[in-house]
Amino acid sequence: MKSFDLLSPHTIAFGDPPKVTAWHSTVGPMEAEGPLGGCFDKTESDPYFGQPSWECAESTLFKNNIINLLDKECLKTSDIDFMTGGDLLNQCTASGFAARDLAIPHIGLYGACSTMAESLLVGSLLVSGGASRVIASACSHFCSAEKQYRYPLEYGSQRTPHSQWTVTGSGAVLLGTIGSPMITHATCGTVIDYGITDQNHMGAAMAPAFADTIKKHLTALNASPKDYSMIFSGDLGKFGKKIAIDLLKADGIDISQNFEDCGCLIYDPNRQDVHAGGSGCGCSASVLAGYILPAMRKGKMDRVLFVATGALLSPLTTQQGESIPSIAHAIEFRTP
Amino acid sequence: MKSFDLLSPHTIAFGDPPKVTAWHSTVGPMEAEGPLGGCFDKTESDPYFGQPSWECAESTLFKNNIINLLDKECLKTSDIDFMTGGDLLNQCTASGFAARDLAIPHIGLYGACSTMAESLLVGSLLVSGGASRVIASACSHFCSAEKQYRYPLEYGSQRTPHSQWTVTGSGAVLLGTIGSPMITHATCGTVIDYGITDQNHMGAAMAPAFADTIKKHLTALNASPKDYSMIFSGDLGKFGKKIAIDLLKADGIDISQNFEDCGCLIYDPNRQDVHAGGSGCGCSASVLAGYILPAMRKGKMDRVLFVATGALLSPLTTQQGESIPSIAHAIEFRTP
Repeated sequence: MKSFDLLSPHTIAFGDPPKVTAWHSTVGPMEAEGPLGGCFDKTESDPYFGQPSWECAESTLFKNNIINLLDKECLKTSDIDFMTGGDLLNQCTASGFAARDLAIPHIGLYGACSTMAESLLVGSLLVSGGASRVIASACSHFCSAEKQYRYPLEYGSQRTPHSQWTVTGSGAVLLGTIGSPMITHATCGTVIDYGITDQNHMGAAMAPAFADTIKKHLTALNASPKDYSMIFSGDLGKFGKKIAIDLLKADGIDISQNFEDCGCLIYDPNRQDVHAGGSGCGCSASVLAGYILPAMRKGKMDRVLFVATGALLSPLTTQQGESIPSIAHAIEFRTP
Repeated sequence: MKSFDLLSPHTIAFGDPPKVTAWHSTVGPMEAEGPLGGCFDKTESDPYFGQPSWECAESTLFKNNIINLLDKECLKTSDIDFMTGGDLLNQCTASGFAARDLAIPHIGLYGACSTMAESLLVGSLLVSGGASRVIASACSHFCSAEKQYRYPLEYGSQRTPHSQWTVTGSGAVLLGTIGSPMITHATCGTVIDYGITDQNHMGAAMAPAFADTIKKHLTALNASPKDYSMIFSGDLGKFGKKIAIDLLKADGIDISQNFEDCGCLIYDPNRQDVHAGGSGCGCSASVLAGYILPAMRKGKMDRVLFVATGALLSPLTTQQGESIPSIAHAIEFRTP
């Protein structure tokens, strides 16, 4: 009655791979103006999403994106067995309050910007185990994240060159027994810390976790990067992306030919002042649901490794002088 | 290859029930002086756990409790496939930093004080699906929780009669293919909100979520409260406990004869000034690992429903006038 095999500690091979039945992505005005603007299911011109606060806006974004996914599939909330997901707000209130209004049994997760991959991992455990339909989701909002992690927007504070721009966006994936692509494998990340203490240089902090998970995943599957159509990281940004390539090259793994970062794809550095690129758990979630999964469904890619990375710091741990522990979870998508 | 059946939406019946192989609990000085003081595996007299801050203390508590569990079972961290767990700190840094030092593949969860039941739910999915050994864990610390959610201790602020005392404690459960009791069923909670806005009256906010999950679980199993040796709630406290009994009575379900709350068990209200009782995700975690599981192993109880409840608010949502959404997950333990 096992539903998966452990290829090695941490890497799961699903016996009956969960299928991606459908998806939905919603982003804010700045993401709508980026290179992927035409890919997302929905773009909102009002960053408040009609709400009185940034936190309410983020929760509404999370909730409405799932409602729109259900509408797209002509499903009701009662047709969904479980939802898995989270966000970046303290006590994960964006997803928690959204789950209240949706009334779907909720498994709340916290993996910082790795949350979308973690959602898919737990969602896949549920579908491969016996559930019919599970929604895996994550979201972030630039304004609530700046307020909570850095400074209120009104301060107009200067940003460092290595800093990234939290994506206002959400992506939700409906996992079930029909559809394409399917999730064949998942690697659960181990927390890695290379001693980076600069909270404005998240890419450097997260790249070692990404490299660690990539190595474990490829080793467990006895695969090499060229076996994949593409490898996507969540939000390493342009500096973290380069560090990740270099770290893996030192281990004899060359991902430079078919590797892209969702944080580098979502904004245009020539037109948009986002420094090192996009970040936030809504970054990889919206790029997955808006760009990667549709491209796979259309046959443009047949084997994709999606590795979302999260920096597990808090503003308080930074104040206390701690370094930044990071984690990366890998999800392998394949089309039949 | 299904590893479980869904008895109804939200209630899982495990095909090959995960077994409780071992457990370990650690508590602080105040819990050591309570009625269950002699039950815990380890008690610490230093609330700082030898660390320079309350946050480091909490993370050390989380980590050392797992290390002690491994030592007790003569296991290494590399013998564990996955760990599931979380805590109450912003960005779940107590568990995140502990996971860094333990280097076990980590699934980070946020369910507020329901986290121990959520950890067991996700851990059970992993073990029933095909993993060999998973550690499910949760912890909280009075001093870090007061600092983050209420006031720094140095303020000496007055507490209201309905307020609860966050337990300094951690409980970890090793799930695997051998041992007793086993986890036969789990009900994943839905977020419920009855409009309570008093952040010092968590029991009232969480009782409706507890009642909802109890009803769903009993209905799915076609069971009644008298079929259980005991039903335990996580940390409703003395007021929430009474509300929960009343809410269920109104639905024709009488749990008053075999129902206890972990938050009411852990302190002595006559000797300890904790107002409505214990709370925090370390409350249900330490009482489960220190009292409930040992009693089941000894044959004193053969069927237990463990329902940990969490209030999904944040200090900010309270400031914004929001009510308190809550969730409760149920885990059913049975001995063969």
